[in-house]
Amino acid sequence: MATSGKVIRCRAAVAWAAGKSLSVEEIEVAPPKAHEVRVKIVATGICRTDDHVLVGTFPDVEFPVIPGHEGAGIVESIGEGVTSVKPGNQQIRNSLWLHTSCAILTEPQNLLPDKTSRFTCKGKQIHHFLWNSTFAEYTVVPEYTLAKIDAAAPLDKVCLLACGFPTGYGAAINTAKVKPGSTCAVFGLGGVGLSVVMGCKAAGASRIIAIDINKDKFARAKEMGATECINPQDFKKPIQQVLTEMTGHGVDYSFEAAGTADTLIAALASCNMNTGVCVLAGEPPAGSTIPIDPFLLLSGRTCKGTLLGGWKMRDSIPRLVASYLEKKFNSDLLITHTLPFAKINEGFELLRAGKSIRSVLLF
Amino acid sequence: MATSGKVIRCRAAVAWAAGKSLSVEEIEVAPPKAHEVRVKIVATGICRTDDHVLVGTFPDVEFPVIPGHEGAGIVESIGEGVTSVKPGNQQIRNSLWLHTSCAILTEPQNLLPDKTSRFTCKGKQIHHFLWNSTFAEYTVVPEYTLAKIDAAAPLDKVCLLACGFPTGYGAAINTAKVKPGSTCAVFGLGGVGLSVVMGCKAAGASRIIAIDINKDKFARAKEMGATECINPQDFKKPIQQVLTEMTGHGVDYSFEAAGTADTLIAALASCNMNTGVCVLAGEPPAGSTIPIDPFLLLSGRTCKGTLLGGWKMRDSIPRLVASYLEKKFNSDLLITHTLPFAKINEGFELLRAGKSIRSVLLF
Repeated sequence: MATSGKVIRCRAAVAWAAGKSLSVEEIEVAPPKAHEVRVKIVATGICRTDDHVLVGTFPDVEFPVIPGHEGAGIVESIGEGVTSVKPGNQQIRNSLWLHTSCAILTEPQNLLPDKTSRFTCKGKQIHHFLWNSTFAEYTVVPEYTLAKIDAAAPLDKVCLLACGFPTGYGAAINTAKVKPGSTCAVFGLGGVGLSVVMGCKAAGASRIIAIDINKDKFARAKEMGATECINPQDFKKPIQQVLTEMTGHGVDYSFEAAGTADTLIAALASCNMNTGVCVLAGEPPAGSTIPIDPFLLLSGRTCKGTLLGGWKMRDSIPRLVASYLEKKFNSDLLITHTLPFAKINEGFELLRAGKSIRSVLLF
Repeated sequence: MATSGKVIRCRAAVAWAAGKSLSVEEIEVAPPKAHEVRVKIVATGICRTDDHVLVGTFPDVEFPVIPGHEGAGIVESIGEGVTSVKPGNQQIRNSLWLHTSCAILTEPQNLLPDKTSRFTCKGKQIHHFLWNSTFAEYTVVPEYTLAKIDAAAPLDKVCLLACGFPTGYGAAINTAKVKPGSTCAVFGLGGVGLSVVMGCKAAGASRIIAIDINKDKFARAKEMGATECINPQDFKKPIQQVLTEMTGHGVDYSFEAAGTADTLIAALASCNMNTGVCVLAGEPPAGSTIPIDPFLLLSGRTCKGTLLGGWKMRDSIPRLVASYLEKKFNSDLLITHTLPFAKINEGFELLRAGKSIRSVLLF
């Protein structure tokens, strides 16, 4: 039975136009319609993808919009026909609000599937973002985008399991299928890249070479499993040549998690020419193209992208949360800052300055 | 025991400079040195790669050079230390002269491994090509580039099993690992593309869409297993959109065998965004780059190159020849012209005019 009722007034961070900072506003959140769920967000991570929205380089976003897509919360009310989750009961207290994508999708998600918005602010309609919009105290999402998780999971930690961590971790174990004893190179040591490092370690890689131009990230990368850390700016030769010389024939698996065309080409050229696999896990700015030399591929290399780390998210998030609770990996290491929601713009400043890996915002 | 002896004077087609036609000359072929074999070439195919050499777009070629890399012949003499083949005996009469690559290699192959040439003409040293140079009546190659094949194999037919056929056939069955019941699209219906069609059919694909701007190739493609043939020039929309509409979500496997950046992008965009696999089997001109939109990959597609169809050639060629003799495939369908060696330039004209698939030259 549907529990939806009143409009809720609450706080949210609204991006009014591309290139502007987020503005924390009071908004109205309409009750969920059929097959929708209203969720009280408890914690949400700040991901580079959200910054792409603010800058205006994420495709198909419409302003004004409430970004955010890495959140965890509790079901507040449900619309007609919703059967998989229920409000007000312990079992679903910790329902994880599932982001749908840092990747492209088959239909625009600026409005809910019925092509309307549940958000208004100062009399204006505000757009949804990827059917997520977790930078709001309450949000409304399609039922099938929610994953129900163990009630014991700490929401301020497992919110990362909605995007950054599974993308990187899954890039290693699902997309590349890293084999035990292999050699890996990870380009870019942000949240996704460090999660790749953890995935390579979990898969049994014997050598994990972490690459970044910010050497402040090396200590953390080593803590997560990197066996060597190198800075391309310390070499006169191209980094692909350095890696080829370090490994003889190039690495078995390379991962691009910096989000630039240059690093993708370097990553592709760094894996061995006959059997090397390069996984694109970072997100280059929309509209950019990567000028790939076809001979890099023709010799036998594989280049593949990873859609959320190759997980089927609705099934996988609960399992990842279970693995987290069993301490199979420690994604907490990615959380460098925990901030009250009101400090959301400070969180973005830390991200842009390279001072944070993940900041988690608490409502 | 080495059987090498005298210099042999014989015919060969020499490319004196980039952009010139081949010149049939009398050359001198020195005896094989240690670990080398001198082979009497019986038949050789003309491949697009050889044309790239003539035009000057194949990387790392040095002129003057004797091209050709798709040949079959008989061992004439062996250098010191050669153990795997012997001259003058029935068992090895049909040794297949193995091309080493239509792809890039780890070391230059313009000279034999000891950095010298066995060819001279008019007092000048002539370069080797990929340790092959099958456009010569006698050539000298490293022992480990030869594959010994069944004496019953017709050399004028199985010479194709040295390059074009295994590249395309293997792209489907080894590199893409096409699954039964799947949908495939093949861009470019030359020797490699038609071999891809045969590979897709052998792998049990239920739908094989063949694409070319030359509709004269469609009848042959259907004979080899294509279920539909389409010409991009018959549509106003981009061919990737046509294919996506024809198949719902895009094909399972796409193959680029036309050798252009545009067709590679179209092939990549034609396979489905979550699990599609695009194999680069054609050979774009050296120095070209492919401007790939990273979002094509990020959503989950895989793009991979195929090194000679993923075969370990020295072991695989004898097995392919055995399969040929058992009629598991009919690569003879690729042979549209058989010409005497003296008509080699006519063979290239047929290739450039799109009138031939494979021409085989006989000495």
